[in-house]
Amino acid sequence: MNEILKNYVTNIPDFPRKGVIFRDITSVIQSSEGLSLAINELTGTVKDLEFDRIAAIESRGFIFGSILAEKLGKGLVLVRKKGKLPRETVSAKYDLEYGSEIIEIHKDAINAGDRVLIIDDLLATGGTAKTAAHLVEMLGGKVVGAAFLIELTDLGGRAALKDYPVSSIITYEGE
Amino acid sequence: MNEILKNYVTNIPDFPRKGVIFRDITSVIQSSEGLSLAINELTGTVKDLEFDRIAAIESRGFIFGSILAEKLGKGLVLVRKKGKLPRETVSAKYDLEYGSEIIEIHKDAINAGDRVLIIDDLLATGGTAKTAAHLVEMLGGKVVGAAFLIELTDLGGRAALKDYPVSSIITYEGE
Repeated sequence: MNEILKNYVTNIPDFPRKGVIFRDITSVIQSSEGLSLAINELTGTVKDLEFDRIAAIESRGFIFGSILAEKLGKGLVLVRKKGKLPRETVSAKYDLEYGSEIIEIHKDAINAGDRVLIIDDLLATGGTAKTAAHLVEMLGGKVVGAAFLIELTDLGGRAALKDYPVSSIITYEGE
Repeated sequence: MNEILKNYVTNIPDFPRKGVIFRDITSVIQSSEGLSLAINELTGTVKDLEFDRIAAIESRGFIFGSILAEKLGKGLVLVRKKGKLPRETVSAKYDLEYGSEIIEIHKDAINAGDRVLIIDDLLATGGTAKTAAHLVEMLGGKVVGAAFLIELTDLGGRAALKDYPVSSIITYEGE
């Protein structure tokens, strides 16, 4: 884990609801040094993976996914909530603590055989990332891994994503 | 205007409603060549501006704003819809064709005297970008310009942003 980078994260008690500590990455990216450090660490953690495209999860995942895609010369695929993508999509539903969510990717965003890296800012239960992986697979793509800036290690995300290599830069136990 | 880059944009008639042609940038970024070309053009268009931070507008603006911030060694400030930023914010409301929208930035995202470049994917009426500029100014920042991948030239965005240098890479008349 990168302790210097961890110092750039802001810990916000009781957000978005009581008893939760929100790990806020906006203070990381606000600093040019924090942003640069985060990207260097993420680049390092995926350097042994071979992939063609990055699937970035709405919307903080867009930040890190976009930078990595451009830096590494890969195509960028947006994983968005239902109704936001204008062309033909595949979609899948997953359960949240309260209710459910539907996410989508464009059908032509993944070609059969494409190797895809999934990127988001934070791994909690892994529900969104696992569903994003299924969308890639529905289109014949192969998920080569998932990388996150932050991992909340007690929430089971790594187990949910057990079929894929998972990496994270900053970890928190509890909460 | 970059005609090669324009070929990467998908034109979608009657989205999100009848009579509108939606200019879809997801097909630009899906291609590593399209993404690279877009970033090279945006970098070129802002190269004579001096700034400390980039303010990127939710959520497609995050894509281009993030890449430019990291590439140019600047801090990245998120301009988000109300309720999504976890720390203390300044907010402002602006009118849409139907209804209104409130956007916010974190109070500590801009220091007095900071020079700020605003980035979004598309300039239409300029309402969002102008309001983002006001948020920066409320915190004592100076807006040095606004850059967009696409400009819909008949919708008055450049006039709305007349107090700032505006640049765009791809333009469309009509619609």
